[in-house]
Amino acid sequence: MNSGTSETRMARAALTRLIEPGDLTGAALVAVLGAQQALDLITSPERRVPESLQQAVAETIGSGTRKELMVAAGLERWRPRVRDLAPERDLETMRRLGGGLLIPEDDEWPGQLEDLGTSAPLALWWRGRSEYAAFDAARRRIAVVGSRDATEYGIRAAHEIIAPLVAKGAQIVSGGAYGIDAAAHRAALAALATTPGSVHGDPTMAVMAGGLDRFYPSGNDDLLRDIAAHGVVVAEVPPGSSPTRWRFLLRNRLIAALCDVTVVVEARWRSGALTTARRAAEMGREVGAVPGSVFSANSAGCHRLIAEGAANIVTRPEDVVEMAGGIEHCPVPADSAGGRAHDGLDIQDLLLFDALPARAAATPDSLCRVAGLSIGAVLGGLSRLQQRGLAVSSDAGWRRSEASSDGSGASSPPRGGR
Amino acid sequence: MNSGTSETRMARAALTRLIEPGDLTGAALVAVLGAQQALDLITSPERRVPESLQQAVAETIGSGTRKELMVAAGLERWRPRVRDLAPERDLETMRRLGGGLLIPEDDEWPGQLEDLGTSAPLALWWRGRSEYAAFDAARRRIAVVGSRDATEYGIRAAHEIIAPLVAKGAQIVSGGAYGIDAAAHRAALAALATTPGSVHGDPTMAVMAGGLDRFYPSGNDDLLRDIAAHGVVVAEVPPGSSPTRWRFLLRNRLIAALCDVTVVVEARWRSGALTTARRAAEMGREVGAVPGSVFSANSAGCHRLIAEGAANIVTRPEDVVEMAGGIEHCPVPADSAGGRAHDGLDIQDLLLFDALPARAAATPDSLCRVAGLSIGAVLGGLSRLQQRGLAVSSDAGWRRSEASSDGSGASSPPRGGR
Repeated sequence: MNSGTSETRMARAALTRLIEPGDLTGAALVAVLGAQQALDLITSPERRVPESLQQAVAETIGSGTRKELMVAAGLERWRPRVRDLAPERDLETMRRLGGGLLIPEDDEWPGQLEDLGTSAPLALWWRGRSEYAAFDAARRRIAVVGSRDATEYGIRAAHEIIAPLVAKGAQIVSGGAYGIDAAAHRAALAALATTPGSVHGDPTMAVMAGGLDRFYPSGNDDLLRDIAAHGVVVAEVPPGSSPTRWRFLLRNRLIAALCDVTVVVEARWRSGALTTARRAAEMGREVGAVPGSVFSANSAGCHRLIAEGAANIVTRPEDVVEMAGGIEHCPVPADSAGGRAHDGLDIQDLLLFDALPARAAATPDSLCRVAGLSIGAVLGGLSRLQQRGLAVSSDAGWRRSEASSDGSGASSPPRGGR
Repeated sequence: MNSGTSETRMARAALTRLIEPGDLTGAALVAVLGAQQALDLITSPERRVPESLQQAVAETIGSGTRKELMVAAGLERWRPRVRDLAPERDLETMRRLGGGLLIPEDDEWPGQLEDLGTSAPLALWWRGRSEYAAFDAARRRIAVVGSRDATEYGIRAAHEIIAPLVAKGAQIVSGGAYGIDAAAHRAALAALATTPGSVHGDPTMAVMAGGLDRFYPSGNDDLLRDIAAHGVVVAEVPPGSSPTRWRFLLRNRLIAALCDVTVVVEARWRSGALTTARRAAEMGREVGAVPGSVFSANSAGCHRLIAEGAANIVTRPEDVVEMAGGIEHCPVPADSAGGRAHDGLDIQDLLLFDALPARAAATPDSLCRVAGLSIGAVLGGLSRLQQRGLAVSSDAGWRRSEASSDGSGASSPPRGGR
């Protein structure tokens, strides 16, 4: 199932402790030397860095600024952490917790992460039901993110949008935080439980900013254990790592990269969820935002994304399906319809229909005057309206049929209404 | 004050009764012959139409289809109504009601109506405080339209958006219907009453589909009288005309043409307000829509306009001001701000700030390891954080300053939060 060797896995396990997420020099060093040699360089006492290596790393990053100092400066960052290295223990810890380390050399490595370029993660620690199903490349992954202080509205909107997506086989990805994140994970787990005959496990994936030996925030401990039991929890930092602000910021790029579509359900004007949305847009992923009350601070960030053209407006699960280019058997929906009796009439016939009384009968002559139509247009029009069941005639003259009255309720204006 | 002659005014008064709104042949005939000659042709018994006139009318409309029948067919539509003509009586009726007829030959004629081309109205019947101020070309006009069955949310949103616009001198235009229309007119009247020292009268204009001798809908009679007393009510059809469905559809084009910006506050998936918005967009006017709950059918039309790219999202009065290119002294707003203590730190200093403990003190050595930074970066960074008031030192080492804790409440995540 895994094609990476145990040596490579061990080396990458160590590197995830030495190199901070988003450290481009570190990632470039691993890309240039390979995991094992990069680890050897960092852990050796040698301080001299060959110029050819400096050059190769600078070229990989694509920036030439102070390139002669890049790797040397990196070594100064990485080496203080060497004393904390214990990759065998980390791998054993994760095995014990029902998980492991997925590395780019594995067949199951999510190829979308390569869209991150040099900032792609060195590896992914995971904890879950089974890494294979969780990372299935054939599945659509939908990120659903938002405020920690979600409102009832946002939580309900998350549920309504997510349930049909999970029933069709999509995997819901979020950050395991309070509020919208938790609502998204819960909606996915609930949809799995209530969808009879669903063939898909792993309805949801939580991408964490800290190590997976201890779940953060602790108030979501039960939820995250549930996600690990039925889905998967992942992080790019090893067990024991604390979830720092920096790692939260960097974690967001993983959510964006892993998903076909990112949906922001509720977000304040300034919110980490907006970062995730912008990273997704930068990578050419589809981004959606759920609108809400203009009086809710929790919707201001969503409205901002829509106003800036950074997100499509999402009001229904179908909007997400459309952005994802379809989710398995879930077809892209046609527009909601439901026509009215007089739809499709040409202008003259609409004028005539307007002029027709509902109860009393009118003569063709009076209809000419009221509608402003010639006698020919009135006679031809009455015949067309009759064929469509909109007009009926009697000895006294013509009136509207009863069926032509709008019966579709409040969505149709009455005669003379807007 | 008016430059149109009384003969031309009389002729146009008559023509508004003969020719239905949006009748392109009629409008072209008036454009080619002038009002008086067009009226003479329609009211004469002559059935032969000179070919040169047919040609000129067809060219004015810009369509060559069956051009030899256009004017003849028009005469068949118009002549049955000649017996109802009484323009002196109509003008007298409107004078008695405190109004009159504004014609394109008047200096006060709103030039924006010419953007309608051939479908521009032949004249505007009005009823109000004074036509001059009402049609002041220097004022910004904002259309606010929406569902008749408005919700409390929509009514409140209309008020919040409209009040500051009126205070700055904008005129709010709507259709006088129940629901959002009524809320828009009321908000404008209330804003006028509560804005001390406002120099502008005529805070609102109602554009009606039927004649102005009787207000429709009757439930808005008091409101429409109020609008006439403090603003203006207009229609392109003469007194006595009933508000047919056709005239409602055509009335919407007048609202769109008269305004710099059209804002839809609430609208169902199918709604006349969407027609107004689309007409406005076709004429190159700015269009906005107010978002709302995804569970509210009354916001579905607004969300639809936004989704289709036909409207900008409007959540604040400032959004409307921006679309209008400014409203007098109301400046285009800058983005809402309110920064956080650590905003603007570079990556290394942010890593260091993350690593700093809030209570216990940390040595520079331990900060190297926790933050993954060199000793040089840590020492330099501590100095910068200290200068910004984010870090403090003691004999035991370094910790965060108390001021660096986020104090801005729920909009800022705590350490480790999203």
